[in-house]
Amino acid sequence: MIGGGKGAFIGAVHRIAANMDGLIELSCAALSSRPEVARESGKALFLPEDRIYLSYEEMLEKESRLPADKRIDFVAIVTPNFVHFAPALMALDKGFHVVIDKPMTFTLDEAKQLQKKVEETGLLFCLTHTYSGYPMVKQAKQMIREGALGKIRKVWVEYPQGWLSGLTEKEGNAQAAWRTDPSKSGKSSCMGDIGTHAAHLAEYMTGLKITSLCADLNIMVEGRLLDDDGNVLLRFDNGATGVLMASQVAAGEENALRIRIYGEKGGLEWAQQEPNTLLVKWLDQPAQIYRTGAGYLGNYARHNTRTPGGHPEGYLEAFGNIYRNFALSLSARIEGRQPTEEMLDFPTVEEGVRGMAFIDNVVKSGAGNEKWTPFTV
Amino acid sequence: MIGGGKGAFIGAVHRIAANMDGLIELSCAALSSRPEVARESGKALFLPEDRIYLSYEEMLEKESRLPADKRIDFVAIVTPNFVHFAPALMALDKGFHVVIDKPMTFTLDEAKQLQKKVEETGLLFCLTHTYSGYPMVKQAKQMIREGALGKIRKVWVEYPQGWLSGLTEKEGNAQAAWRTDPSKSGKSSCMGDIGTHAAHLAEYMTGLKITSLCADLNIMVEGRLLDDDGNVLLRFDNGATGVLMASQVAAGEENALRIRIYGEKGGLEWAQQEPNTLLVKWLDQPAQIYRTGAGYLGNYARHNTRTPGGHPEGYLEAFGNIYRNFALSLSARIEGRQPTEEMLDFPTVEEGVRGMAFIDNVVKSGAGNEKWTPFTV
Amino acid sequence: MIGGGKGAFIGAVHRIAANMDGLIELSCAALSSRPEVARESGKALFLPEDRIYLSYEEMLEKESRLPADKRIDFVAIVTPNFVHFAPALMALDKGFHVVIDKPMTFTLDEAKQLQKKVEETGLLFCLTHTYSGYPMVKQAKQMIREGALGKIRKVWVEYPQGWLSGLTEKEGNAQAAWRTDPSKSGKSSCMGDIGTHAAHLAEYMTGLKITSLCADLNIMVEGRLLDDDGNVLLRFDNGATGVLMASQVAAGEENALRIRIYGEKGGLEWAQQEPNTLLVKWLDQPAQIYRTGAGYLGNYARHNTRTPGGHPEGYLEAFGNIYRNFALSLSARIEGRQPTEEMLDFPTVEEGVRGMAFIDNVVKSGAGNEKWTPFTV
Amino acid sequence: MIGGGKGAFIGAVHRIAANMDGLIELSCAALSSRPEVARESGKALFLPEDRIYLSYEEMLEKESRLPADKRIDFVAIVTPNFVHFAPALMALDKGFHVVIDKPMTFTLDEAKQLQKKVEETGLLFCLTHTYSGYPMVKQAKQMIREGALGKIRKVWVEYPQGWLSGLTEKEGNAQAAWRTDPSKSGKSSCMGDIGTHAAHLAEYMTGLKITSLCADLNIMVEGRLLDDDGNVLLRFDNGATGVLMASQVAAGEENALRIRIYGEKGGLEWAQQEPNTLLVKWLDQPAQIYRTGAGYLGNYARHNTRTPGGHPEGYLEAFGNIYRNFALSLSARIEGRQPTEEMLDFPTVEEGVRGMAFIDNVVKSGAGNEKWTPFTV
Repeated sequence: MIGGGKGAFIGAVHRIAANMDGLIELSCAALSSRPEVARESGKALFLPEDRIYLSYEEMLEKESRLPADKRIDFVAIVTPNFVHFAPALMALDKGFHVVIDKPMTFTLDEAKQLQKKVEETGLLFCLTHTYSGYPMVKQAKQMIREGALGKIRKVWVEYPQGWLSGLTEKEGNAQAAWRTDPSKSGKSSCMGDIGTHAAHLAEYMTGLKITSLCADLNIMVEGRLLDDDGNVLLRFDNGATGVLMASQVAAGEENALRIRIYGEKGGLEWAQQEPNTLLVKWLDQPAQIYRTGAGYLGNYARHNTRTPGGHPEGYLEAFGNIYRNFALSLSARIEGRQPTEEMLDFPTVEEGVRGMAFIDNVVKSGAGNEKWTPFTV
Repeated sequence: MIGGGKGAFIGAVHRIAANMDGLIELSCAALSSRPEVARESGKALFLPEDRIYLSYEEMLEKESRLPADKRIDFVAIVTPNFVHFAPALMALDKGFHVVIDKPMTFTLDEAKQLQKKVEETGLLFCLTHTYSGYPMVKQAKQMIREGALGKIRKVWVEYPQGWLSGLTEKEGNAQAAWRTDPSKSGKSSCMGDIGTHAAHLAEYMTGLKITSLCADLNIMVEGRLLDDDGNVLLRFDNGATGVLMASQVAAGEENALRIRIYGEKGGLEWAQQEPNTLLVKWLDQPAQIYRTGAGYLGNYARHNTRTPGGHPEGYLEAFGNIYRNFALSLSARIEGRQPTEEMLDFPTVEEGVRGMAFIDNVVKSGAGNEKWTPFTV
Repeated sequence: MIGGGKGAFIGAVHRIAANMDGLIELSCAALSSRPEVARESGKALFLPEDRIYLSYEEMLEKESRLPADKRIDFVAIVTPNFVHFAPALMALDKGFHVVIDKPMTFTLDEAKQLQKKVEETGLLFCLTHTYSGYPMVKQAKQMIREGALGKIRKVWVEYPQGWLSGLTEKEGNAQAAWRTDPSKSGKSSCMGDIGTHAAHLAEYMTGLKITSLCADLNIMVEGRLLDDDGNVLLRFDNGATGVLMASQVAAGEENALRIRIYGEKGGLEWAQQEPNTLLVKWLDQPAQIYRTGAGYLGNYARHNTRTPGGHPEGYLEAFGNIYRNFALSLSARIEGRQPTEEMLDFPTVEEGVRGMAFIDNVVKSGAGNEKWTPFTV
Repeated sequence: MIGGGKGAFIGAVHRIAANMDGLIELSCAALSSRPEVARESGKALFLPEDRIYLSYEEMLEKESRLPADKRIDFVAIVTPNFVHFAPALMALDKGFHVVIDKPMTFTLDEAKQLQKKVEETGLLFCLTHTYSGYPMVKQAKQMIREGALGKIRKVWVEYPQGWLSGLTEKEGNAQAAWRTDPSKSGKSSCMGDIGTHAAHLAEYMTGLKITSLCADLNIMVEGRLLDDDGNVLLRFDNGATGVLMASQVAAGEENALRIRIYGEKGGLEWAQQEPNTLLVKWLDQPAQIYRTGAGYLGNYARHNTRTPGGHPEGYLEAFGNIYRNFALSLSARIEGRQPTEEMLDFPTVEEGVRGMAFIDNVVKSGAGNEKWTPFTV
């Protein structure tokens, strides 16, 4: 693991998610760029002293020289996104498979370089767009792909949060500080941090691609340097229209990612905060409540569930599904088996490139006076 | 009553709403332009034969010649909106107060003429934007006006319906037929029929005015002549941003008007299909569930409620509130009393003009390539 | 109308419900036993002075002597239940049809006498068990009768209210005062006022009859004279079991009547506070959300609905359905037509007798040490 | 780990829960009484061959002879409850701390013997009543203990499941087979498997003890040997009353444990299937929605949460909380520290004894004709 020392939020989440199924063992780490934090954090995780590294370079270098049965199989990169590119590239160069948090890089150009490197090396690359790991998201995707809703016409995806309603970044909140700092977060805060999740979810579930967009990005809290709010009109490659709404200043909201998709025959609705329910609406029949763990679900939802119906699975399990599918694919590869389609269903470098392109396009549109900006990669 | 003969939807709703509180009596009507329908419908409503009129002209003419204690006090106009202007103008001219359905007229110009006439005559004029009649909408408005949420930053209002997902207007549905016919409905179907409700609700609840907008209007069903779907970015006069989403092709949705408003201190959420609940969210405290009929509500909500908490009131009661407030204001006026502020809280000709302007502006924006279109009246 | 003067809750509700559909006109009333209240209340309702009566005896006497085309068709009795029996009996004796609030009488014996009188006179008799007037209750009843759930096994019905959590009857609340006073309310407060609604709903929806019960009745607020809380185990005539829970001290609850019914193939759930939704659950399929106003509903639900889907109907409409069905049945009778089965679907004297028997049996069981008390009438 | 081989449900859950926080490592196991299953399951879990045992006796014997730094610290017993007592007793005798599934034993007598043994040895003993591990359950408990609701008056706890609506045990469902078999499950199926959870939750959250009960236990599916359904009236030691409803034949329900508790000042409601929400209702104020991860929660809820608000935690996290608190308490003990009160907040042998007593009392009451059966231990 690279990054994720004491006090980091997403690093701890990665560890729980990776631990959950007993398929992955944390063997070494470069947990912080500050040596004392790296050491202390490593000990707290029961790592052997000789595999607590003080930099990712040291770690990748030394691990790559260990014998095959001793060294790590893959690297998890959980640093803020301005420290994603270099370790990812080096890891791939040294022959390690990679799991990496989103947004994938700092710039679109870095993203494309990574994509090229992944193609060259043929290594597995997994981007942790957590929300696509939920079983009911996978059920929705499968139903749409199989035509249950008919041609898709509309997509409304929203991601309201309220935690940046004040100038939190000036009040000692480290999470807020780097996310709102252009030198660390990149061109966008709201669209980079949560808008990319929403865009990915929309494309993942519908199987469509955004082809143009019209963005209204705003800084609602005085003194902030990056967008904390934005509304985006969308057009998709099949002619469907959409709206993407994301906000970090929707006071009183937690992490309320929600999506509604309508086709010719019906619609569906999924909300991350009650993730085990998928509401499916029909033109002339009662709406149906699909539930995680039920016997009537498709193979993708079933594969990504651990408990019977009525035992709610949550964010950590969804995150765990990303890791589990990656680990199962990796095991299959190591053992010379072909991974199943369910195993291979995790976001990868292509999604990372589209995410970085989304940021670029949405920022460009937000700054311009043209109604529609084509989505270019 | 003008319009509302057999088979009409909104006419029947007006009658129930007007009957509800025992304040209003239906005394005469011109229920249809087809004489036999007018006669038959009048009988079914127990009207005396001499007050079943065959045209609105006849009715307004004859009623105006009755002695003051025999003739009607006001006229309710419930025809499709292309037959609103002439009877409304004539009614005002003859000295009758007016209740009229929305959208107020066929064109913005007619709307402005009506406004002028209302100002000249000093008569009461009531526009039945039903949704502003709900007690919890009034509670929200009062809380926002009193500053509970701080400065308003964001408004998301949505109005998905699914009933025009197919080419319903070609399948014998009279409601669909006139609403999708430019010669009867005007420039817009979706934005005219339901977008205006959403825009009015946003302005009514926040007390803000839309100052510019960016619209993406669409015809999603082939063969249709007017928009059946649209997404609109909004800006308000205090700097707040917003999104208005309306659709008649959101398959599986009924009449799912919903609004979310966020300020610096908190947010609130109201959904028309569960109208007795107002969700109020706070930055650092648990969200609260305000409920119709509760003792802690403000004077506006209490005034517009008929039963104790837990006895759900619905669409007809909200509609009834518009009529009741109009009737109470009218009674006060007739009896020389000053109506209270709660009585006077019903939409009037100003809201009608803004509604027609909304249609004009949103259609103009939808047709253009500029990102932002100023909201002009 | 007998009873329902100024300040009465249920009288006003009866008037709105009766007004709603334009089928019923209030022609005369004895609104209060206090002459000045009777007069003032009558005027406020725009009654002609000669038909504002000062006692029900006077009203029934004088009205019965009016010519047939002048006098009332039926009487609505909305007094507290200790003043139900005498006016109901007299009204029937004078040849008037009767609408009466529940519980039907003060004692079971009175109820049986009324039943005999109704049978003798052949007059229409309507008991306003409001909650059976909701469209989704009727839909559930129809689905159960048609076997959708298979044999019914379990019924859970609950009716929590919180308004008597304190000693409200000593704080000037007139509604609380008579309901908790044994000389006015009878043997029971909680079970009489709301338990009877719950028991009726269970029998109405399932078509089953309670055959034995085991009651735990309690006075939770010190100083109160009648039960304010009770839990009752039930057995039904087909072998199904059940629980009825009612409370007036469930602090924070409004009027939260809710029922769940399970059969061999599925279950259903309906809650009065969100009455337009009926949740239908299946063993091996997704649960379904049935909604008022939808095209797929049965004839009973459709007959009892005024607006299209998504326009919420509430308590007053449910109450109005009772009145409307009574009025339609009465009109049919007056005009010599056979009322349809949908029109005749309102509670009558039999349900009133069972309600009074429920009170007797539940109070007897509550006082005893035997586990099961047979339900006797 | 004892039990939990291939195909076992709860064993896999225990492993995920124990893995989650990186505090516990599975070192050895006797996973099945069938040697080949034990071996195969052990390999699948990456256990070293010499610590895959073929019986719990072998495991406890051999592990106890390992040096202190090599042997396990505690044993997790996840067999069906008829194989709980002997391994638990032997583990305690050999000096191992114990985690054990519920119901704790096969008979009340065994439970009391275990209790005595735990007291004698002073070892840590943890009973996995999962549902008390949810953060919002802990929040509710803390609020009640601190008097937020005033004196508790009513408790309604319900646990409907539908999975035994048919004769599932005859259709090859192993989970159903042992739970409905008196020789493996004991005196009760429904009350033993899920009624005990409900009873524990009621006592845990309120801090009250059941003092008497009145049970109606039923076999609803012909051919079944043990209760699959039951409704129980409850009385608590402070005078509060209650109802416990549990069913395995509530067709269409998943695992719908839900509890409502009312006091003099307010009430609260928690449902296991949406576990991150705690609804708190007040007499004269809007109800409040408490949410997992929020800053306003008490120390118990916060201690038992891993992610920020809006990142739903579920059943596995709740289960993980039991393990985590046990592990933290054990670590503290090993390191000579005093565990905090939050760490020590996990169910133990006392709760296990009360659970077995609940089964005994409820079965006795169900078979008798007396209304009330005192709750004896």
